[in-house]
Amino acid sequence: MTIIGAGNVAWHLSHGLSLDFRIHQVISRSLKPAKELAKALGCSASTSLEKLELESDYILIAVNDQSIANVVQQIPLHYEGIVLHTSGSTSIDALNKFQYYGVLYPLQTFSKAKEVRLDKVPFFVEGNSKKVLEPVTTMARTLSTTVHQCNSEERLRLHMAAVIACNFSNYMMDWAFNISGKEHFKHLIPLILETVEKAIEVGPQKAQTGPAKRGDLVIIDKHMALLSNSKEKELYELISKLIMQKHV
Amino acid sequence: MTIIGAGNVAWHLSHGLSLDFRIHQVISRSLKPAKELAKALGCSASTSLEKLELESDYILIAVNDQSIANVVQQIPLHYEGIVLHTSGSTSIDALNKFQYYGVLYPLQTFSKAKEVRLDKVPFFVEGNSKKVLEPVTTMARTLSTTVHQCNSEERLRLHMAAVIACNFSNYMMDWAFNISGKEHFKHLIPLILETVEKAIEVGPQKAQTGPAKRGDLVIIDKHMALLSNSKEKELYELISKLIMQKHV
Repeated sequence: MTIIGAGNVAWHLSHGLSLDFRIHQVISRSLKPAKELAKALGCSASTSLEKLELESDYILIAVNDQSIANVVQQIPLHYEGIVLHTSGSTSIDALNKFQYYGVLYPLQTFSKAKEVRLDKVPFFVEGNSKKVLEPVTTMARTLSTTVHQCNSEERLRLHMAAVIACNFSNYMMDWAFNISGKEHFKHLIPLILETVEKAIEVGPQKAQTGPAKRGDLVIIDKHMALLSNSKEKELYELISKLIMQKHV
Repeated sequence: MTIIGAGNVAWHLSHGLSLDFRIHQVISRSLKPAKELAKALGCSASTSLEKLELESDYILIAVNDQSIANVVQQIPLHYEGIVLHTSGSTSIDALNKFQYYGVLYPLQTFSKAKEVRLDKVPFFVEGNSKKVLEPVTTMARTLSTTVHQCNSEERLRLHMAAVIACNFSNYMMDWAFNISGKEHFKHLIPLILETVEKAIEVGPQKAQTGPAKRGDLVIIDKHMALLSNSKEKELYELISKLIMQKHV
């Protein structure tokens, strides 16, 4: 197997895959991350797709969505193995110049600084034919206990939901961090843990609390008066309006 | 002690306080919740502040912020005990007609449907004099291992940070739930847990991932095209812009 990319997703997936698959090479635009990942996997590193080993059974493209087309263009049309990408929001059709292609999408947030238990990560797989779908499903099952088939349209929706639940929630925590300051942020941790626990236990609609849920415009105004950044003020108001629309 | 209010905060605090304090009565505008709480505490219930027992050592006002002024107005000026409210965003000065007054603010989200371990909840206390601050600090310590003194201005900032970290994050989960559907929401749970774990472990700024963090406008556009509600589209764009401003 050849891994293209050496970012967060490439890093975590290739480590998991290396337990069951032989990874020959890592190819990434930047030499340093390519070398770091290749060293960790015990394989060769390259920055050029011209070095691609065409005997690999699989090419796993784990790069930014914006770079997928460029990578695809550089892989020879006559490559006979299976080409996979790992993107939530890119259609399987991005790979349709090849004979065998599919998607191995992990629904998780990955940062190199933080270990993730891959076996708990839901994987969504797609293939252009049974000849792909079967081995890709098996591959995903070597990584995780939760594997589902899903088409590109469903995957896009799921990815959007993931961006909102994860990236946007994280931004809220970051915003709160900047307001509370580092010292007080630790006092927000029990609240943050309880928020998530409650949303999972009773569902996020029923779990909603707070000034906007109660339609308390006085508090909303008090808070907005504390925000000096006009975009943040706008954001505070917009989220509050949407919560009020739903609950008041 | 008299509890005024029978909502989420009144419910959880009075249960915790009843272990160390004798709660005489619950007064709330609506009879049903007042009776339910009084029954759980084994005390009397009333819907009228005229029934307030002036021999109580403490009056704990745990009502919506908007109702505090109205409650205060109805408590006789000559009440000789300590009057406390539990609000994050209301100044201690809302109680300044009394001789002894203060604040007992729990930094947590409370819903009746969900038990909360009060001992893990950070409490922020304030008093108009030592004669209040000391017993209120002691009271908070009977409930929790984390008790801090903090003035009304700091408490307002802390409450705003809490609203953003908790209520706004919960709204993001609710939004994601509506996009993914109930069936797929369960696949978002490992992601949500990992998001929070990572934000706490490495800090939310370093934990940020996703299309906006990478400045991937193509994905942002794809997602926005899926949103039919114009306010949600606006929200998706605004949060993405703020993440990009910070990271790209």
